[in-house]
Amino acid sequence: MREPDSLRESTIDLGAAGADVLARLRAQAPCVHCITNAVAQNFTANVLLAAGARPSMTISPEEIGAFVASADALLVNLGTFDADRRAATDTAVAAAAAEGLPWVLDPVLIDRSPPRATYAGALVARGPRAVRLNHAEFAALADAAPQAEALRRYARDARIVIGLTGEADVVTDGARLATIRNGHALMARVTAMGCVASALVAACLAVERDGWLATTAALLALGVAGEDAAIRARGPGSFATDILDALYRLDRDTLVARAKVQ
Amino acid sequence: MREPDSLRESTIDLGAAGADVLARLRAQAPCVHCITNAVAQNFTANVLLAAGARPSMTISPEEIGAFVASADALLVNLGTFDADRRAATDTAVAAAAAEGLPWVLDPVLIDRSPPRATYAGALVARGPRAVRLNHAEFAALADAAPQAEALRRYARDARIVIGLTGEADVVTDGARLATIRNGHALMARVTAMGCVASALVAACLAVERDGWLATTAALLALGVAGEDAAIRARGPGSFATDILDALYRLDRDTLVARAKVQ
Amino acid sequence: MREPDSLRESTIDLGAAGADVLARLRAQAPCVHCITNAVAQNFTANVLLAAGARPSMTISPEEIGAFVASADALLVNLGTFDADRRAATDTAVAAAAAEGLPWVLDPVLIDRSPPRATYAGALVARGPRAVRLNHAEFAALADAAPQAEALRRYARDARIVIGLTGEADVVTDGARLATIRNGHALMARVTAMGCVASALVAACLAVERDGWLATTAALLALGVAGEDAAIRARGPGSFATDILDALYRLDRDTLVARAKVQ
Repeated sequence: MREPDSLRESTIDLGAAGADVLARLRAQAPCVHCITNAVAQNFTANVLLAAGARPSMTISPEEIGAFVASADALLVNLGTFDADRRAATDTAVAAAAAEGLPWVLDPVLIDRSPPRATYAGALVARGPRAVRLNHAEFAALADAAPQAEALRRYARDARIVIGLTGEADVVTDGARLATIRNGHALMARVTAMGCVASALVAACLAVERDGWLATTAALLALGVAGEDAAIRARGPGSFATDILDALYRLDRDTLVARAKVQ
Repeated sequence: MREPDSLRESTIDLGAAGADVLARLRAQAPCVHCITNAVAQNFTANVLLAAGARPSMTISPEEIGAFVASADALLVNLGTFDADRRAATDTAVAAAAAEGLPWVLDPVLIDRSPPRATYAGALVARGPRAVRLNHAEFAALADAAPQAEALRRYARDARIVIGLTGEADVVTDGARLATIRNGHALMARVTAMGCVASALVAACLAVERDGWLATTAALLALGVAGEDAAIRARGPGSFATDILDALYRLDRDTLVARAKVQ
Repeated sequence: MREPDSLRESTIDLGAAGADVLARLRAQAPCVHCITNAVAQNFTANVLLAAGARPSMTISPEEIGAFVASADALLVNLGTFDADRRAATDTAVAAAAAEGLPWVLDPVLIDRSPPRATYAGALVARGPRAVRLNHAEFAALADAAPQAEALRRYARDARIVIGLTGEADVVTDGARLATIRNGHALMARVTAMGCVASALVAACLAVERDGWLATTAALLALGVAGEDAAIRARGPGSFATDILDALYRLDRDTLVARAKVQ
């Protein structure tokens, strides 16, 4: 089946633009400071290293300010939400604001915990560049079903980029909206895959001021790497290993050729 | 050497019954909330996902009650035993009792720490459905060598299922006793392998009310997956990856054919 | 190009001596207690198990003393530096001193955090057998560039072994100095690779009283395992898996033949 010309054109553009972002990520090797949960920490650090960024992960209140101030982007992931991490988050977000650093919010599992959802709402008001979440988490955050219009409205009102992941990924800043149809079902069988997507968004924000493009580039790169990993993987164990290899090896031609984004 | 008929018969039964439990686990995808140590968290989440369950891991006192109340089973693992985890455990066990949720205790390394052993004893009195442990941990918990009679007595007195893992695994509820001779030596060379066995017991308890059968099914599935992984593995690194793949791919025929349980 | 005779001789000696240390590690299976960061915990435990040691990781103040007292060596890693870990470290170092246990300090990322650097300096004064660090960390600790003379002087003054890792690794106790030219660039693309090197140093110290030889043996073994892993690896994901396999399989002949140490 032949795609309409307009679709094919925008597909090519975003694939190439995403490849540009990835190339800059590798060239600049930005420092990404991550406040994230213990389940995700190791895999997140390895994804960032595979993509070309340099991760740090401390949440100690005495030093997180210094780490954020010398970083290029910040990730705030609410999994394992506890008092230490909330205190670290407060200091880190203030340091990011002071330095003009972009940051990403990942409101993990807020659909399972009302106090976490309330806290996520308060953080959105502090100005993350992007929020990466899944369908249930968007519904809990925005009190609306994750349809295109609701996504646009929430992004526009909060002046953020929404990166919604699922069978297809949707990225919007209220005005523009990209739909990415890459990825593989095994991504849902590896823990912290959403968390690492958010970390990759932070890394891309460090090298691309357009938050919508940076978020699109990150989700696209991860989706294409996931498809490549699925070719060799025998199951979720080898898939988690292979996606790191695939992200490390991902080249411009592959990304542009495989991108299913409009 | 020919096995006696009675043994062969019970072997077939428990293999098939274990396959039934595993099929239900995949069909129902139960939520398993895990209080576990930071060493084990990522691998535990990935084992649960590979087997078909949905893990959550927070220990935050503000929200653990809500997570447990919306889960189908609970794991309490005492590795990295600290004040936060003890407080979380108290809330979580109370929530499990209120909801009638089955829970598993894994008294990690209590043979190395008297205060942890005392705490484990107090938790047994709060009614876990099963306790999964190794030989040294049983000796520390029960003040008795892990022989069949001592295992039966402890299980009967505490009204729990004991799942003892080692070269052979033994599962007893005081009345019934199963011995599983599956598994592979490399399982002792991967950290948190006992922890993930306990998590898998919790997942099986979520879909099978007979705690003895659920525990047997979990240890059997992990043992057979371990044997399958050992066929391809070059060492403990690839083994840890391969056992996730093997658990994900484990089919009824393989489980029934390979089960060495009586 | 032919190497000078003196170099070839010392190369052979340290390779063989390192193989002896590794053989003793496997035979004695020492317990290594690790205070380390959450990013590194799982990989560290798996590296120790692959090498033949037995890891434990608790930082609970109530029990860390008992764990250290029944261990054969201690690792103090400052990644994820927080109040809990500082309290645990204080108790653990005191227990190690009381028992005459060797311990290793890994001052992770002290170049990014002044308070962490101050704390690391105070710990050096408490007598670790060895300090394993990278170039930026040495510069922050010693206020000097990591050249041979500065390394020797710092080691001599502090009466410790310095194990500096980088493109080449340098190990000195002030008098002797070994340079190891094994390893692979992918080691910098896997998180916590320095942390696991420090853990392996601790394991070798448990079976070899000469801290300089133990540190050299640990870094040599990891470097050769890394080269072996790089032969098969497709990227950093499979490399992290393969290095565990390679360490587990590393035999005397391979270690001696591949050692590039002088």
